[in-house]
This record gives sequence, C-alpha cells and structure tokens, in this order.
Amino acid sequence: MEKREMVYEGKAKKVFVTDQEGIYWLEYKDDATAFNGEKKGTIGDKGIVNNRLSALFFQALAKAGIPSHFVELLNDREMIVRKLEMIPLEVVVRNIAAGSLAKRLGVDEGFQLARPVVELYYKDDSLGDPFVNESHALAMGWAEVAELQEIQEMGLSINEVLQKILDQAGIILVDFKLEFGKNEGKVLLGDEISPDTCRFWDKETQNKLDKDRFRRDLGQVEEAYEEVYRRVSSVLKA
Amino acid sequence: MEKREMVYEGKAKKVFVTDQEGIYWLEYKDDATAFNGEKKGTIGDKGIVNNRLSALFFQALAKAGIPSHFVELLNDREMIVRKLEMIPLEVVVRNIAAGSLAKRLGVDEGFQLARPVVELYYKDDSLGDPFVNESHALAMGWAEVAELQEIQEMGLSINEVLQKILDQAGIILVDFKLEFGKNEGKVLLGDEISPDTCRFWDKETQNKLDKDRFRRDLGQVEEAYEEVYRRVSSVLKA
Ligand SMILES: Nc1ncnc2c1ncn2[C@@H]1O[C@H](COP(=O)(O)OP(=O)(O)O)[C@@H](O)[C@H]1O
Ligand SMILES: Nc1ncnc2c1ncn2[C@@H]1O[C@H](COP(=O)(O)OP(=O)(O)O)[C@@H](O)[C@H]1O
Ligand SMILES: [Mg+2]
Ligand SMILES: [Mg+2]
Repeated sequence: MEKREMVYEGKAKKVFVTDQEGIYWLEYKDDATAFNGEKKGTIGDKGIVNNRLSALFFQALAKAGIPSHFVELLNDREMIVRKLEMIPLEVVVRNIAAGSLAKRLGVDEGFQLARPVVELYYKDDSLGDPFVNESHALAMGWAEVAELQEIQEMGLSINEVLQKILDQAGIILVDFKLEFGKNEGKVLLGDEISPDTCRFWDKETQNKLDKDRFRRDLGQVEEAYEEVYRRVSSVLKA
Repeated sequence: MEKREMVYEGKAKKVFVTDQEGIYWLEYKDDATAFNGEKKGTIGDKGIVNNRLSALFFQALAKAGIPSHFVELLNDREMIVRKLEMIPLEVVVRNIAAGSLAKRLGVDEGFQLARPVVELYYKDDSLGDPFVNESHALAMGWAEVAELQEIQEMGLSINEVLQKILDQAGIILVDFKLEFGKNEGKVLLGDEISPDTCRFWDKETQNKLDKDRFRRDLGQVEEAYEEVYRRVSSVLKA
C-alpha cells in the first residue's frame, strides 16, 4: 500500500489517504496538548506507545467481537485503518470520578461510581468540546437514535474488555474517551486508545500512568506511558 | 385546613406542613435570585403571579392527564399541594436555544431546535445545579431508570400542552424547568410553572416576558410577569 497526501493533521495524529479507496494511513505524533490546546508540549516517544498500544487494544477488542477501524500495524508510529465518517461525539466512560466529573458531582477524585457513567461531548475545539446529551445530538443532527444507543453500548462493552486486560496489568481503568464513525453503514470504533485518552492508575500505588502527568506537571510522563505499554503488551502477548 | 410550622424556606417559596398528613401549604414570595444566588432582588407581586399562574397551568395539565402536586388555590399567594419526596433533578425542556444552551452549542439565542431538547440538572445550590445525564443520576442514586424515563417523557408532554396554551396567548415557550417528586409510589409534577422557571417570548415582538428581564436588567420586570398572567388567564378562563 502507498501513503499519499495528508488529509488532516490533528493534535496527536496525521491522517493520510492511501492508494486504496476507503483506507487511511495514521501517523502518531509526540505532540501533546491539554486544556483545549492552551497547554502545549511534547512527550518523547508518545507516538510509539499510543500507536502500538492502540493496535494491541483494537486487536483484543476484535477478539471480543467489538469492531474497530484497525486494519494493520505498520511500524512504530504508523497503522492502517478503515476510513470512517466520524460521528462528532466523544464517548467518555467512567468507573471512578476524576477530573471534570469529580468537580461536577462535588466528590473527591477517586470516588468509586456505583455503576459506569457514560457521557457524550460534542467534538468541537472552538466550543471546547462541550458536555452534551442525546437530545442535543438528535436536535443538532450529530447522530441518530440507533447510533447513539450503539456507541454508548459499545462504550460499556469496551469498558468491560479493557478493565479485564488492565486489571491483569495491575492498572485501574478510571475513565476513557472513545470516538466512533460509520463505514458502509456500520458503526465502528475509531481513533485511538492510549494514555492520552484514558486515565490509568496503578493498582498498588494509585500512581497516575496517563496524560494527567503532563496536564498537572507531575513529571515522569514518558516513563508512565512506557510502563503502561510494557505491562499491557506483556499481558496481551502472553 | 390549618397552616402549621414552616418546614423549608426556599428562594421563591415557603413550605409549611398542615394538620393533614401528606399535605403541604405553599406560600409564594416576591424574592428573586439569579446566577446561583449571586444576584438578589424583589419583583413586586411576583408571588401572586407565580402562584396564580402555576395553579392555572397545573389545572390545565390535569385536564390533559398530567398529574401534579396541585390540590387547591387558596388566595393570591398560597396553594395547597401534595407533599412529595422530591427527585433532586431539574428537568429542562427547550424548544429554542437560549441562555446556557446557546453558549454550549455555539448558536445565537433564538436558534430553533429541530426537536425539543431535554436536559437534567442536579438540584444542588452548593454545586451550582450542574448539568448531568441519566448515567450520573443512576450512578449517584438520585433516581431510578423508570423514573428518569417518566420525568423526561412527562417533560415532553407538558411541553406540548403548555405550547398550545401559550400560543393562544401570543407567547412562544422557549424553554422551562420542572421538578418532580414521588407520592405514594407515583411520579408527580411538583414545584411551580411561572415566568421564574420558563422563558416566554412575545410572539409578535420577541420581547422577553420572563425572569431574563430581571437577570439581564431589562426593566419592566413586574409588567412582564403581569402581562403573562393576564394573557394566559384570559385563554384558560375563556
Ligand atoms: N478511521 C478514521 N477515519 C477518519 N478519521 C479518523 C479515523 N480515526 C480517527 N479519525 C480522526 O482523525 C483525526 C486525527 O486525530 P487527532 O490527532 O487525535 O485529532 P484531534 O486533534 O481532532 O483530536 C481526529 O479528528 C479523529 O477524529
Ligand atoms: N409538593 C412538594 N413537596 C415537597 N417539596 C416541594 C414540593 N414542591 C416543591 N417543593 C420544593 O420546595 C422547595 C421550595 O421552593 P423554592 O422556593 O423554589 O426553593 P429552591 O430555592 O430550593 O428552589 C424547593 O426545594 C422545591 O423543590
Ligand atoms: Mg484526538
Ligand atoms: Mg425553586
């Protein structure tokens, strides 16, 4: 397959068309942003971890019957995916309150939710990715009833699969963000699953092993990303 | 019936027990607050309008098959209601984007929604009544699945009934906030329906006829409240 023109450069990845219709080539970058782009930086080799870790998770999800855009891992920073017509909603699944949810509910970070929470955010940088609900999505034409149900149910199923894997890796899955899109009428999981898009806490020490180390200037950012990859790959390749 | 001790003084109403088990006596005040209590004032005779207008709306809703706490109008400022075990959620129904929704969606105030939007807010002054969704309510134990469905469906039915009445009164129902509670296992509409809890725009002039006149210092606040009561009562008493 041939890598052709770049069609989009996002905050974390570059998207290229290929010589094959309906197939994209993703390149993962080390660029890191937070707080809606206000904070900018670089996390060394983040692109490698996020690319390789996403590939592992997409493969594990496929085995569990959850379809994604993932086609093939090419090398350290690149993967081949199905081109999706993205649904402009971020689906956030949470097991433990942290970040904005702890503030919203007035609970301490670490508060154990009695059941997983699913939230929708409208993916729009200029609006700061606002928290929305299903009725907003329907009124604005961002998604249809069946799609809304499907992406939220898929979010909860993905939560189950990831929790199991991460638990074996000694990691608590606090929360994570997913993006979905449509391919030939089917809803597929897209984008990435990585320490950029998940909150991972060490089961023993409660140490943060994710982008919060960058957001909150906690140091040892690269080390945390590498550590997650090392642990998850040893579980999934075992 | 006898009015006994006050059990709660809210921002807009006083709640008294009566000599009858399960029956409350509500007294509507002229006190007005906005922006989570930051702005305080008085709107002359607001208590009279809100009490009498709520009574009219509750009676019209009852005729349409929508049950509320309303039992009897006593006088200018007082009504008798069924005591409810309040569900700590505000149900907001919107036909046109205004206020916080216009900001959230990045649209102009006045943007016509393709279909009514229903939002839930957790009723908690100390948190500023945060916008939440069903999964938050379930995880926090604020309501059960069936109740969440019921209060949102009731919200949409109430929207239909109120829109019809208000249209005849030359008023556009932009949005409104409802509170529900449980009484003998049944979900009933509670609280009030008034220019404090609705956005009303004049159909011809688009003039605001609601609490936004107070929030935004537009003047003629009392006049707007009186005008809504005059128009709605002439429709409903005709
Ligand atoms: N399979 C796919 N097909 C099309 N677009 C995709 C696919 N997977 C992810 N995307 C989109 O690619 C873009 C690049 O990713 P990223 O760098 O994370 O961008 P962003 O800054 O928008 O988050 C995102 O807008 C994402 O939604
Ligand atoms: N039928 C009812 N039974 C019990 N409580 C009610 C009923 N109707 C309304 N309430 C509650 O009465 C309180 C008084 O109303 P209000 O002055 O608007 O208070 P607030 O400042 O909390 O909004 C509110 O907390 C409201 O939820
Ligand atoms: Mg992204
Ligand atoms: Mg109130």
